[in-house]
Amino acid sequence: MYQKYIKESEQSRLSMMIKKYVFGNPYETGATVLPVEPAGGIPERFRFAAETGTFSYTLKEKDLVFGLGETVRGINKRGWIYVSNNADDPEHNENRISLYASQNFLLVDDGTECFGVFVDNPGSVTFDIGYTDPDVLSIHPEYNDTSFYVIEGETPAGIVGTFRELIGKSYVPPVWAFGYGQSRWGYKTAEDIREVAAGYKALGIPLDMIYMDIDYMQDFKDFTVNPERFPEFADFVREMKAEGIRLIPIIDAGVKMETGYDVYEEGKAKGYFCKKENGEDLVAAVWPGKVHFPDFLNREASDWFGDQYQVLTDAGIEGFWNDMNEPAIFYTEDHLKEVFAQIKEFEQKELDIWGFFEFKDVVGSIANHPEDYRRFYHKFHGQKVRHDKVHNLYGFYMTKSAAESFARNCPEKKILLFSRASYTGMHRYGGVWTGDNCSRWSHLLMNIQMMPGLNMNGFLYSGADIGGFGGNTTEDLMLRWVAFGIFTPLFRNHSALGTREQELYRFERKEDFKHLIELRYALIPYIYREFLKAAETNGMYMMPLWFAYREDERCREVEDQLLVGDALMIAPVYEQNKTGRYVYLPESMRMLRFRAYNDYDSEVLPAGDHYVKAALNEVLVFLRPGCELPLATPARHVEQIDEKQLTRIIFAKP
Amino acid sequence: MYQKYIKESEQSRLSMMIKKYVFGNPYETGATVLPVEPAGGIPERFRFAAETGTFSYTLKEKDLVFGLGETVRGINKRGWIYVSNNADDPEHNENRISLYASQNFLLVDDGTECFGVFVDNPGSVTFDIGYTDPDVLSIHPEYNDTSFYVIEGETPAGIVGTFRELIGKSYVPPVWAFGYGQSRWGYKTAEDIREVAAGYKALGIPLDMIYMDIDYMQDFKDFTVNPERFPEFADFVREMKAEGIRLIPIIDAGVKMETGYDVYEEGKAKGYFCKKENGEDLVAAVWPGKVHFPDFLNREASDWFGDQYQVLTDAGIEGFWNDMNEPAIFYTEDHLKEVFAQIKEFEQKELDIWGFFEFKDVVGSIANHPEDYRRFYHKFHGQKVRHDKVHNLYGFYMTKSAAESFARNCPEKKILLFSRASYTGMHRYGGVWTGDNCSRWSHLLMNIQMMPGLNMNGFLYSGADIGGFGGNTTEDLMLRWVAFGIFTPLFRNHSALGTREQELYRFERKEDFKHLIELRYALIPYIYREFLKAAETNGMYMMPLWFAYREDERCREVEDQLLVGDALMIAPVYEQNKTGRYVYLPESMRMLRFRAYNDYDSEVLPAGDHYVKAALNEVLVFLRPGCELPLATPARHVEQIDEKQLTRIIFAKP
Repeated sequence: MYQKYIKESEQSRLSMMIKKYVFGNPYETGATVLPVEPAGGIPERFRFAAETGTFSYTLKEKDLVFGLGETVRGINKRGWIYVSNNADDPEHNENRISLYASQNFLLVDDGTECFGVFVDNPGSVTFDIGYTDPDVLSIHPEYNDTSFYVIEGETPAGIVGTFRELIGKSYVPPVWAFGYGQSRWGYKTAEDIREVAAGYKALGIPLDMIYMDIDYMQDFKDFTVNPERFPEFADFVREMKAEGIRLIPIIDAGVKMETGYDVYEEGKAKGYFCKKENGEDLVAAVWPGKVHFPDFLNREASDWFGDQYQVLTDAGIEGFWNDMNEPAIFYTEDHLKEVFAQIKEFEQKELDIWGFFEFKDVVGSIANHPEDYRRFYHKFHGQKVRHDKVHNLYGFYMTKSAAESFARNCPEKKILLFSRASYTGMHRYGGVWTGDNCSRWSHLLMNIQMMPGLNMNGFLYSGADIGGFGGNTTEDLMLRWVAFGIFTPLFRNHSALGTREQELYRFERKEDFKHLIELRYALIPYIYREFLKAAETNGMYMMPLWFAYREDERCREVEDQLLVGDALMIAPVYEQNKTGRYVYLPESMRMLRFRAYNDYDSEVLPAGDHYVKAALNEVLVFLRPGCELPLATPARHVEQIDEKQLTRIIFAKP
Repeated sequence: MYQKYIKESEQSRLSMMIKKYVFGNPYETGATVLPVEPAGGIPERFRFAAETGTFSYTLKEKDLVFGLGETVRGINKRGWIYVSNNADDPEHNENRISLYASQNFLLVDDGTECFGVFVDNPGSVTFDIGYTDPDVLSIHPEYNDTSFYVIEGETPAGIVGTFRELIGKSYVPPVWAFGYGQSRWGYKTAEDIREVAAGYKALGIPLDMIYMDIDYMQDFKDFTVNPERFPEFADFVREMKAEGIRLIPIIDAGVKMETGYDVYEEGKAKGYFCKKENGEDLVAAVWPGKVHFPDFLNREASDWFGDQYQVLTDAGIEGFWNDMNEPAIFYTEDHLKEVFAQIKEFEQKELDIWGFFEFKDVVGSIANHPEDYRRFYHKFHGQKVRHDKVHNLYGFYMTKSAAESFARNCPEKKILLFSRASYTGMHRYGGVWTGDNCSRWSHLLMNIQMMPGLNMNGFLYSGADIGGFGGNTTEDLMLRWVAFGIFTPLFRNHSALGTREQELYRFERKEDFKHLIELRYALIPYIYREFLKAAETNGMYMMPLWFAYREDERCREVEDQLLVGDALMIAPVYEQNKTGRYVYLPESMRMLRFRAYNDYDSEVLPAGDHYVKAALNEVLVFLRPGCELPLATPARHVEQIDEKQLTRIIFAKP
C-alpha cells in the first residue's frame, strides 16, 4: 500500500539509508510499513556474539545515545540498562529497567557521525548502554528472532525522519484532544462527573474532556455502563457534550468471566481468548476479578473485540484510553493455587528467617509473575505463539483493534485513542500516556525527559498524568507540572483513588491555575500546527536542544530544556521551593515570562547562561530568532477558539 | 553536672533565648542537658488546638524552614509532611514521610526574623510544613506529652548554637575514623576481608577501616564470631591492624533466642528483655530468626548489654555500628500466627479482587507492622511504658548503652560508634549513617541535602552509604558519590548482598578512584580541624549557603552547594552524563578543580553565576576570601599523615 506512493528514486534513497539484518525467524510485528530487503551478515558497526545472541558496539567517548521512548533517567540514555518488557510497575524510579512501553529505536551521535538502530523483536530485549561496561552498548534479545535495522543519515533529525518513514505516519487525534482533560480513578456516578464539570465551569477554567476510569462500568466489565450510577448514559454523554465536554471512557484488556455477559459468552464461544498449552482459556485476575484475555494478535478476535467499542461510540463517545494491556496480571488462577499450596508448606515447617523471606516473596511476587507470561498462547498469523515471545505486542494490538474498528465502523468520525502499553508501530493507531506515575518532582522531570524519546519513536500524542497518579500531590508540584503540561499534546490531570484530590479548582491558587490552562488554550493554534507538521513530515514535536544546535558542545548535556515545534524552547521549573532556574541559550532568544496569556514579560536575552526568575505562577517560553508565536484568545473549549484572531509575538532575526 | 560550668549570667542569657513549654507529662528523654524552667501558656508564635493537640504557625511568604535532620527532599523542608517515627524503609523516595531517624529540631527564617523549635517527644510527631496548607506549619504529636522548646536568636547559626547548648556537645570519633572505610554485606570469611584489604593495597588506595556486616557472627548472634570463618579472631584483628586497617563489626538490636547462648540466657534470667502486656518476653524475628529485644531504656539492662561489647573490645575491636535498632521487626510471633489464620480464611472463601488485595496486603505488611510496636513495653525510669510512646528512643538508648560501657570499661580508648536509628540526644554518644539507601543519583543528592539538617541536630559524624546500599551502582555514580563523600565525616562505601560489587578496585578507572581517596586524605587536616571546631563551638561542619550569606536573596534557594567548615564551599555533580554544572558564588572565590591532591586548576571567579566544567574525575572546591586550605601529603592510613607537612592554598581577601 504505502510503497506505491514512494517514487523509485526515493525507494532507492531509503534503501541506501536503511539496512535490515535478519536473525532467526522474526515475527511480522507490524512495526514497520516500508519493505526493506535484508542485507546479509552482521549489522554495520556491531559485533555479534552468536553464542549469546548479543550485538555490541563500542561507544566513542563523545557518543550520545538517544531514544528508547518511555524509559527512566535522562534524555541521554548512556550509563544504564533497559529491558523492553512491558510492565505494570507504578514505582518507576530511576533504578527501574522496564516500564509500560517497548520502543526499540536508539540513536547514537558523537556530533560528527550518527546512526540509528531499531530492534524489531516483540519479546524481551535488553539494552545495556554502558551499564556493564561504560564503553559498550550491547543489545540482547531474549529470543533472537529479530529484524535489526541500522539507519544512516547526516543528522539526528534526518535519521529520525528516515526511521519514521520506515515505521509509518504518526496518529493524529481530533483537535479537541489538544484541550485540557480532567481524570480521576473514583468518579463513581454521573453526579460526580457533573460536579467536576461544574467546578471548572464556576471558575471559567477551560476543559474539553472528562475521563472515566473503571468506576463507570458494571463490575468492571468492558463495554458496560452501570445503569444505576449512570442512568441513560447516551443522554448523559449528550448533556456533557452540550457543556462542551467529551467523556472519555477507559477500556481494560481483560474480559470478566461471567455467565450471561455477552462479550464473555461470545468470546468464549468463538475461541477468541488466549489459551493455555492444554487448550483451555487462561484464567487471570484483574479489576473485574477473574478474566480471560482477548487474543488481539488473532485477526478475527481483534476485529470482534474492536467491534465492541460500538456500544459506546453509538452512545456518542468519541474517545477511549486502553489500559491494563501489558497485560497486567494481578494473579492467574493456576499460580494462585500454587501459592496457597506453598503457603501450607511454609506454615507446616518451622520458618527460619530465610524461609520467612521466601514466604513473603512468594506472596509479594504474585502480580505480573514472569512465569504467568509463559502460561498462555496466541494465534498469530495463524501460528500458535507463546505469549512471552510476542509480549510487547499485546497493548499495540489491542489499540490497533480499536483503531481499525473505528476506521471500519465510523470512518466519518475522528476518535481519540491512546494506550498504556505500547510497541513501535502502535504510534500509527493511537497515542500513549506514560502510565501510573507518582506525585513526585522527579516524575515531573521524568515526564520532561521522556518526551523526546517518545517522539523519536513516533509517539507524538503523548503525555504523563499531570500532578501524578499515585501518592499525594502538593499545590506547588501541581502548578509546575501543569506549567510543563501546557506543552505536551496529551494534557491530562489524573490521579488514583485514595490520593489527595487534585482537580485544579480544589487548590488555593485558583486564578493561577486558570491562567495556566488559558495559556494552553492560547497556544493551541501553535501546538496543533507544530504537531501536525511533525506528524506529516516525520519530525519531532518535542526535541532535545542538541538536535537543533549540534555545533554547540554545551547542548550535549542540556536535558531540562526542550524545543517545542520550530519556534519555541521551554525551560520548565521542576524543583520544589524554587522561584528561578538556570537556562542555557545556544543563541539569542526572546524570553517570554507568562503569568497569563495576556500578561507576560518580554526580554531579548543573549546567547549563553542565564539565571532566570520564574515564580510559581509563571511559565518561561523562549522564542527562537526569526520566529513568531501566534496566541489565540482562550476559549472554554478548543472548538471555540477563533484561529483567525491571533496575536503574534515576533522575534526578528537580530 | 553541666550547669555548674555555666556562669549565672550565661544561664540567664540562655533562659532568655530558650523557652520551654510543657504539655502533659513528658518523658525524660535525655535529649537535652540544660535545665530550663518551663514557661506557662502556649509556645510563642504558635496557636495550640487543645482538642487535636496540634501546634500551628502561619508561615510568612519568605519563611525558609530548615532542620529535621535525616529526612527526604531538599534543605528547605517547606512543601512536604514528615513524621518522626523511626522506620526501616530502604525505599526512601521523595514521597516518604518517615526514615530511620527522628531529629525534631526545626529552624524558621525569613531573612529578618528567625526562631528554632525543638519538640522533645519520643513518640510519633507529625510535621506538616506547608503540605496540607502551603502557608501553615503544623506540629502534631501522636501523644501530647511534650516538652516544646522555642529558641530565639538573631541568626540561623546563632539559634543552632543555642539549641546545641541545650542538647549538649556532639560526639567526636577517633581521628582514624575520618579515613575511608570499605563495607559490604557479604564478607563471609577472614579471607574475604583479606582480599578487600589486598585489593586496596595493590593499588595503593588509602583505607582505614573494613566494616563487618552480620556475616561475621555465628548465626547472627550479637557478640559472637563464627569460629570457622573467622578463626582466632583476636589474631585476625591484630593482623589487619598491622596492615593499618581497623575492623568495625556491626551489632544488631535483637538477641537470638537460643538455649545456651549466654547473652540470651542471662538477659532472660535477669528480665532484661522487652515484655508483652502479659509479662512474657516479646518474640520478634530479625536476622537471627526469633529474638528478644533488650530493654535499653531500663538502666540495668542497658548497662548489662553495653558490657557485652567487651568481648569484642577485648579482641582489639575499636569501633562498632549499631543496626536494626528502630527496631526493625521482620515479624512478631504473635502477628505471624494471626496472619496464617487470616490466610486460611482467605483461602476458604472465593477471593474477589478486593479480597485478593487484602490477602496480599496482610502478607505484605508483616514487617515493621504498626500493631507490633504496641505489643511490648519498657521499664523506663522505673515505669512500665508501652513501646510506641517512646519508640524513637530505642536506637538512641542502644547507642548510649554502648557508649557508656566504653567510658566505663575502657576509658583510655576512643571508640568509633554510630547507629542507624537515632533521636536528638544520641548525637552526644555516636554518629549516624543515613540507613539503607540505594544506588541512585537522587540518593546522592539526598545525601548532600541531608547533611545540614543532621548537623543542626548535632549529628556531625554522619554520612551515607557511598555508591548506594541497595540496587546496582554504576561507575560514574560511584565516581561522583565518592567525590562528594570526600567531604562527609563518615566516609564509607557500603552495599548489600546480591548487588553489584562496588569496592573501588573493581572499576575500570582505578587511578581516578585512587586520586579521589587520596584527596580525602590530603584534606583530613582541614576536615578534622573544622569538625572539631564545630563540635566544640556547637557549630555546623556542613552548612547551607544561606546561613553565611543571609543578605543574599539568591542563597535562599541554593540547595546543591554546601559550606564545609569556614574556608570551603563545595558544588558536587550529582547528575548522570554531566561534565559540568552551574555554581552560584555569593562572593568572589578561588575555584580549585582537583584531579588529584597535587593536580588541580586554580582560578579566581567573581561573585555570580558560573557554568563550570567538572569531568568525572574532577572535584570542585571553592576557597572563600581570606581563607586558606591546608593540604597534607596523603598516606595509606590517617595516622600516617604528617600534619606538620602541609601545603597551603591561599585566597587572600581581594
